[in-house]
Amino acid sequence: QSDSSVWTRGGVMMISLQSDSSVWTRGGVMMISLQSDSSVWTRGVMMISLYSLTALYGLEEVCEIKKGETLLVNAAAGAVGSVVGQIAKIKGCRVVGCAGTDTKVSYLKELGFDQVFNYKTVTSLEESLRESAPHGYDCYFENVGGKFSSVVMPQMREYGRIAVCGSISMYNDTTPQTGPYVHTYMIFKQLRMEGFLCARWKNKHQQSLRRLMAWMTEGKLRCSEHITSGFNNMPAAFMGMLQGDNIGKAVVKV
Amino acid sequence: QSDSSVWTRGGVMMISLQSDSSVWTRGGVMMISLQSDSSVWTRGVMMISLYSLTALYGLEEVCEIKKGETLLVNAAAGAVGSVVGQIAKIKGCRVVGCAGTDTKVSYLKELGFDQVFNYKTVTSLEESLRESAPHGYDCYFENVGGKFSSVVMPQMREYGRIAVCGSISMYNDTTPQTGPYVHTYMIFKQLRMEGFLCARWKNKHQQSLRRLMAWMTEGKLRCSEHITSGFNNMPAAFMGMLQGDNIGKAVVKV
Repeated sequence: QSDSSVWTRGGVMMISLQSDSSVWTRGGVMMISLQSDSSVWTRGVMMISLYSLTALYGLEEVCEIKKGETLLVNAAAGAVGSVVGQIAKIKGCRVVGCAGTDTKVSYLKELGFDQVFNYKTVTSLEESLRESAPHGYDCYFENVGGKFSSVVMPQMREYGRIAVCGSISMYNDTTPQTGPYVHTYMIFKQLRMEGFLCARWKNKHQQSLRRLMAWMTEGKLRCSEHITSGFNNMPAAFMGMLQGDNIGKAVVKV
Repeated sequence: QSDSSVWTRGGVMMISLQSDSSVWTRGGVMMISLQSDSSVWTRGVMMISLYSLTALYGLEEVCEIKKGETLLVNAAAGAVGSVVGQIAKIKGCRVVGCAGTDTKVSYLKELGFDQVFNYKTVTSLEESLRESAPHGYDCYFENVGGKFSSVVMPQMREYGRIAVCGSISMYNDTTPQTGPYVHTYMIFKQLRMEGFLCARWKNKHQQSLRRLMAWMTEGKLRCSEHITSGFNNMPAAFMGMLQGDNIGKAVVKV
């Protein structure tokens, strides 16, 4: 039933609420179509996709986040991170975000994050995390891994939940990074840590996309994309993403 | 309502199914009383206590173990580990256990473990784990921590669960041990790791003790204790426990 005239070219993602197979995957990029006469047909809607679903499931299914809790998200200006923080705010949580440039920090403040800091320029990550949430963190949405995670661990609250979504600090490693074992914190604080992939809840994708779209049309949720033009620039765009050049979803327009 | 005449001296644990406050803690040792006329009043029953509850909750509440799954437990001849393996067998699972002496390995075979090996004498822990469960582990009951855990991680199956109960290899560390970060395995295998303390489910203790006792009286569950006599020998008994001298619960009779 989808109207092929509403597809954009070049891998930009789109959303379907009409087709029977609500979600197709092509080469790892989810492509979703929309009724062309839908009132919710906005540019923003085009960008709701896997990464927003990932943010939603990480918070709801993995963290089981509750109103009033304190959440930490790193790589917070990234495609997933920025949506994580906004959804947690919608759910009545206190949100602390970390990013690696001052521009990103400003962007996250605009999005309504309660506390944001540039983890690259603070004197001490440990102290900045503690000042941002003196009572500790109930939930930790992990996009970075490595040393960052070792600093967060002692600041988790009892029964804390850690959604392990990504570990961008580790993707380029030729030899695995090492850090202190987490067992002691996990036991005495009774922490739960869970890795996840979005596709696990694909039976919920359709209803989840409706909820995300509703938040967008109500103005409660913003998604950004960082567009690089030209197929030839794809490698540079990919490396840039790993180095933290982008705010929001890194998209290559071909 | 408990009959104080059934208390034994010297910190040996006992079980109550009658008193209103079914579980007391004194100095970290759980003391439980029993109706003195109960038909289940056996020596074995006296030894069901915190460590058996820990084994039960770790399997049921944390691992949510299911019939047909493969479980790995280390420090398997210890108080908790030996009960873990036996309960998993009762639940229709395949059980692999690791211990540090040949005597312990024999004991675990007697208890019905499917595969057991002495992790101190095998050529390669990695290979022995793989041979014991070529398709990997659904559940991992963690009593050891440290390097052992790093070897297990790559052999977990998708949606694997890790109950972090103890980390005996790390208790004597003056500087924290380090190992490879677990994020990548956690994400791509969608693993769940959770630390826990028995007291979290104290509202279930009474019914859980009934179930454990039933298994004992049916001969499906055996609990051992390693008795050291004399208050003065307590430090040696404690050090011995950390070094793996004991089979089953380390008890000091004073």
